Amino acid sequence: MLGGMQDWPLLVWRLIDHAALNHPNREVISLTVEGPKVCTNWREVRDRARKVAQALVGLGMKPGDRIATLAWNTYRHLECWYGISGMGGVAHTINPRLFEDQIVYIANHAEDRVLFFDLSFVKLVETIAPRLKTIEKFVLLTDRAHMPESSSLDLLCYEELVAAQDGKFDWVDVDEHAPSGLCYTSGTTGHPKGVLYSHRSNVLHAFAASLNDVFGLSAQTVVMPFSPMYHANAWSVPYAAALTGAKLVLAGPHTDAPTLHKLIVDEDVDFTLAVPTVWLSMLQHLEKTGEHLGKLKRVAIGGSAVPRMMIERFQNDHGVAVSQIWGMTELSPIGTSGTPCPDVLAMGPEAKLDAQCKQGRAVFGVEMKIVDDNGAELPRDGVAFGRLLVKGPWTVEQYFKGDGGQVLDADGWFDTGDVATLDALSYMHIVDRSKDVIKSGGEWISSIELENAAVGCPGIAEAAVIGVAHPKWDERPLLVVVRKPDASVTKDDVLAYLSGKIAKWWTPDDVVFVDELPHTATGKLLKTALRDRFRDYRLPTA
Amino acid sequence: MLGGMQDWPLLVWRLIDHAALNHPNREVISLTVEGPKVCTNWREVRDRARKVAQALVGLGMKPGDRIATLAWNTYRHLECWYGISGMGGVAHTINPRLFEDQIVYIANHAEDRVLFFDLSFVKLVETIAPRLKTIEKFVLLTDRAHMPESSSLDLLCYEELVAAQDGKFDWVDVDEHAPSGLCYTSGTTGHPKGVLYSHRSNVLHAFAASLNDVFGLSAQTVVMPFSPMYHANAWSVPYAAALTGAKLVLAGPHTDAPTLHKLIVDEDVDFTLAVPTVWLSMLQHLEKTGEHLGKLKRVAIGGSAVPRMMIERFQNDHGVAVSQIWGMTELSPIGTSGTPCPDVLAMGPEAKLDAQCKQGRAVFGVEMKIVDDNGAELPRDGVAFGRLLVKGPWTVEQYFKGDGGQVLDADGWFDTGDVATLDALSYMHIVDRSKDVIKSGGEWISSIELENAAVGCPGIAEAAVIGVAHPKWDERPLLVVVRKPDASVTKDDVLAYLSGKIAKWWTPDDVVFVDELPHTATGKLLKTALRDRFRDYRLPTA
Ligand SMILES: Nc1ncnc2c1ncn2[C@@H]1O[C@H](COP(=O)(O)OP(=O)(O)OP(=O)(O)O)[C@@H](O)[C@H]1O
Ligand SMILES: Nc1ncnc2c1ncn2[C@@H]1O[C@H](COP(=O)(O)OP(=O)(O)OP(=O)(O)O)[C@@H](O)[C@H]1O
Ligand SMILES: [Mg+2]
Ligand SMILES: [Mg+2]
Repeated sequence: MLGGMQDWPLLVWRLIDHAALNHPNREVISLTVEGPKVCTNWREVRDRARKVAQALVGLGMKPGDRIATLAWNTYRHLECWYGISGMGGVAHTINPRLFEDQIVYIANHAEDRVLFFDLSFVKLVETIAPRLKTIEKFVLLTDRAHMPESSSLDLLCYEELVAAQDGKFDWVDVDEHAPSGLCYTSGTTGHPKGVLYSHRSNVLHAFAASLNDVFGLSAQTVVMPFSPMYHANAWSVPYAAALTGAKLVLAGPHTDAPTLHKLIVDEDVDFTLAVPTVWLSMLQHLEKTGEHLGKLKRVAIGGSAVPRMMIERFQNDHGVAVSQIWGMTELSPIGTSGTPCPDVLAMGPEAKLDAQCKQGRAVFGVEMKIVDDNGAELPRDGVAFGRLLVKGPWTVEQYFKGDGGQVLDADGWFDTGDVATLDALSYMHIVDRSKDVIKSGGEWISSIELENAAVGCPGIAEAAVIGVAHPKWDERPLLVVVRKPDASVTKDDVLAYLSGKIAKWWTPDDVVFVDELPHTATGKLLKTALRDRFRDYRLPTA
Repeated sequence: MLGGMQDWPLLVWRLIDHAALNHPNREVISLTVEGPKVCTNWREVRDRARKVAQALVGLGMKPGDRIATLAWNTYRHLECWYGISGMGGVAHTINPRLFEDQIVYIANHAEDRVLFFDLSFVKLVETIAPRLKTIEKFVLLTDRAHMPESSSLDLLCYEELVAAQDGKFDWVDVDEHAPSGLCYTSGTTGHPKGVLYSHRSNVLHAFAASLNDVFGLSAQTVVMPFSPMYHANAWSVPYAAALTGAKLVLAGPHTDAPTLHKLIVDEDVDFTLAVPTVWLSMLQHLEKTGEHLGKLKRVAIGGSAVPRMMIERFQNDHGVAVSQIWGMTELSPIGTSGTPCPDVLAMGPEAKLDAQCKQGRAVFGVEMKIVDDNGAELPRDGVAFGRLLVKGPWTVEQYFKGDGGQVLDADGWFDTGDVATLDALSYMHIVDRSKDVIKSGGEWISSIELENAAVGCPGIAEAAVIGVAHPKWDERPLLVVVRKPDASVTKDDVLAYLSGKIAKWWTPDDVVFVDELPHTATGKLLKTALRDRFRDYRLPTA
């Protein structure tokens, strides 16, 4: 027997239709590659997205086809997202910060048929085009006036393509399990693998993202995601903002603190999201200029562990509440959110901060457990740590084309590759990536915690910790540090600073100063490169 | 091609499992029929719900079987909700305020196999038991000490049943489209018909209900639904509170203002929900006692139109924000929510109040349109009104057992039976029920608006307006009024009061004073009864 309720598949285009009908004039503000700030709204975005869908059908695209974008957070990128999914296509967002070889690899692997790209990437696309085997149409996301005079490519002009459509187009009805988007992992730990989001997973995730204990969106919210639309759904903000009718502010190609800051103030942004590195430069900018953050009330930070001092600075100096988010490409991306529960609110300031440094509690729709090396579940006591496994309707089942084989265990759990604790209040705390954790004499040392402690040291701009071979202990931690400009901090200064802040046996066996640290396309430390570089490093203790 | 995300059916027991794991100690407070206030929590509710499920299986119940409840808002009723759905059964909540004949009719129609009921209803159940054709087991929701000494029924004791289980029970995996709950319409306009909620519809609805612009729940919320668990899912609060980890406060059998008020204050309730009649007595109570509402910040009011003065009193006298909710049994029940959008917030106080008197905007997951008598869509201009049609994943597809036949039109729209306008900001305004609207000379008069205007008149406690036959105009409005105790307001007073507040041609042709008005089981005006009573009434203008 089935229930008596309507069959209404969860399709991504319903989000934009809802926004267009119920919040037609709510603004979508966008900085652009061309220069001007463009102000549009949910109705116009919907109307133009429909024309994108219509144009794609005109170009011969069919449901299931992968259509790629190589673009910043702009209204045109947004139109492409909805237009591609709305004609049944798969919006494959490519991260322009990947190496050329990686971009070529994933575009060919995905068999993308059309590529929409921003003016910033004309050179890049011209260079790699000869190696792109499946792309039939190159669409430049600009108007006629900004089209390059000549190009080695046969370029279509986005605005002309849109203008040529009459918009009389019905969104395509597909199964809610049909693919809607595609994103490759960022390659921090290996070759990128594709995660194929479904309409259903994106809509359910948007519901969850909108909840109070996650992003807390409403029709009154003015939200600016610095999380890029080319990676992991921009943390679902372009979907959740449409679901709730929030005003959406997009920073275009800009990533510098002064521009982002001006946009926050000018557009009355009250909520924004980004990875810690973005906030590091923002806080430095604010320190330098003495400026304030306008109407900003809340920030969500994730992608890497959030340093304690960042939470303190936001909350104490700027009155901006911080909540940490943990997620991954394979999770669409949200797994946990660190908004305070009543028990945490009742704590003293230091204990509250401790809780905020954890990655947060599972959102409804994400099941989590930690297991030991034999797969046995570990207690939720805040002490035991083990591999973090997840399950849920927006967790990957298998990578695109079966890459990596069967990635769920027999009970359907996905191994996140992270090592974590879970406490009695259900806050999850990432100890480390399983590939980065340092195995010293059978015990584990968290590289993340050492890094977070080290960046608090005066004179240190950035820090990374890796395990280096040791004859007695197997591995011991090596701290690799970038000094702040003009700083002259020494190894002894650093070790003295760390003393008392970390377990004594965690103390790095050596400190090395470098000019810069290697990063991935999503701004994370690239430890594989660092480990390669220090493969033969001989610790003074060895 | 399908997406690469996990298959994780949306099942109701996942809500309680989520709460038990992530918010184990968050309280569920409950007044009881026996007397004491019981304090339990989400983990205990889950553990005991599992035992309920186990007990039902022990009694021979199978997935798909209907299991009835006749109970107040209590922790035991909550355990039954989750326990029944969790073993694959259908939780059929029966409204104890229905007439005996109606209860007998729906229990037989549903073919309920087990009946859980509160001590308050022993007499009732004993009386109707001989006519209940399918119920095999009668379970009294109490402990051994409170079991009646003798009964014409072979009664099972709930606490004994629970205590006999070891709780080793796996929730039953069913299709997410499988039925989870059953509720009959309240019979305001006709014979009750069953709405068969699915697991999927309940979970999706809980997501929507939790959103900021609907109930805005979080782990910090303390929510008390006065909406009864025996009707329309108690507006989904028992599901949404589990989804978000809110503290849940249940008033048991109590409906009197002093008890509800004490509970709000004692338990730090910050959000609560009820129909207007409950709030009418609460406001009178507050006026009389001069008491305040503790930590209460927000109320959601729905089920009938919210009088303007109620919104004013809450907001101006008590600093409590009001949002109007419109819904119906067939909608699980939420359709719209009246939280202010930025355009409304920017209005002056009177215009803002006008907007708050409307029923609100469609929640994502509810499609709405208004149509004329030929089914042609009407403009969203705040003026044109017509039949309100809806669509969505928690809107009924057909009534239980096909009662009423095909209830969707060819395009899948469900006719709500309400007549409404939609304005440019997408606020929906109920003009009337299509059966209650007064057809005067080819034009429509809204009985609801006349009633809302009339209750503002000093000396009037309650008012109802019905159409009465008129030789020239077909129908003209008759105002039927209950005076406040000791008030001596006259027909002329009332008409003088209304003058200027309503269109002149809407002025009732007569005013009749009565001792009380007939109500339905959900506290609404029973206009069918009123029309019967005044069927041969001769208007002075006729
Ligand atoms: N708040 C956080 N604190 C600590 N680590 C985080 C946090 N949020 C995300 N991460 C880390 O980021 C990972 C997910 O990142 P993402 O999916 O962008 O790609 P990646 O894992 O960096 O790349 P790849 O999977 O290709 O190696 C998580 O598995 C976790 O290790
Ligand atoms: N905020 C509101 N303002 C005006 N009317 C409302 C509001 N909320 C609900 N209603 C009315 O209540 C109806 C839904 O009520 P419910 O499903 O409880 O049963 P009923 O319609 O009263 O009974 P029946 O369908 O058996 O005649 C709506 O169709 C609408 O007429
Ligand atoms: Mg990864
Ligand atoms: Mg009805």
